[in-house]
Amino acid sequence: MDVDAIGYTAAALTTISFFPQAIKTLRLDDTRSISLSMYGLFTTGVAIWGVFGCLTGNGPLIVANGLTFIPAAFVLQKKIRHRLLRGER
Amino acid sequence: MDVDAIGYTAAALTTISFFPQAIKTLRLDDTRSISLSMYGLFTTGVAIWGVFGCLTGNGPLIVANGLTFIPAAFVLQKKIRHRLLRGER
Repeated sequence: MDVDAIGYTAAALTTISFFPQAIKTLRLDDTRSISLSMYGLFTTGVAIWGVFGCLTGNGPLIVANGLTFIPAAFVLQKKIRHRLLRGER
Repeated sequence: MDVDAIGYTAAALTTISFFPQAIKTLRLDDTRSISLSMYGLFTTGVAIWGVFGCLTGNGPLIVANGLTFIPAAFVLQKKIRHRLLRGER
């Protein structure tokens, strides 16, 4: 297995990993054990990675972080809603 | 702000973001709204990023993923325990 393939495997795993969480959050409408700080920091970080990818013309970085941003932002907005509407911590 | 600083900011945010989740999981001992698939895929991906960093001699990649692996693996093992011991989905 050449080294690049290892990198692409890691990128694929960390990118797709947020989709099962978004699906679970959508299905259960429960975010009580999820950390708002985590998703706030992570979603912001992923967005900045995307900006960095644009500034450096790095396609894979733009695609991977663009893909990850979608489910991460979905979970973040659900967590914020539950805090505002239900007062959940 | 030079471009590298933007990259390091993104790396710092995505790296530290998993610590608040690990702390919340430790405090509440509740992982019910957390996806096992997410943490399984993500923790594996982060580990492979670390291997990739070693193979390519990329220090920041090793440090960032090594740091992220700790809280991610902690949450993963808690989720697995809760599924095995409590039968939680």
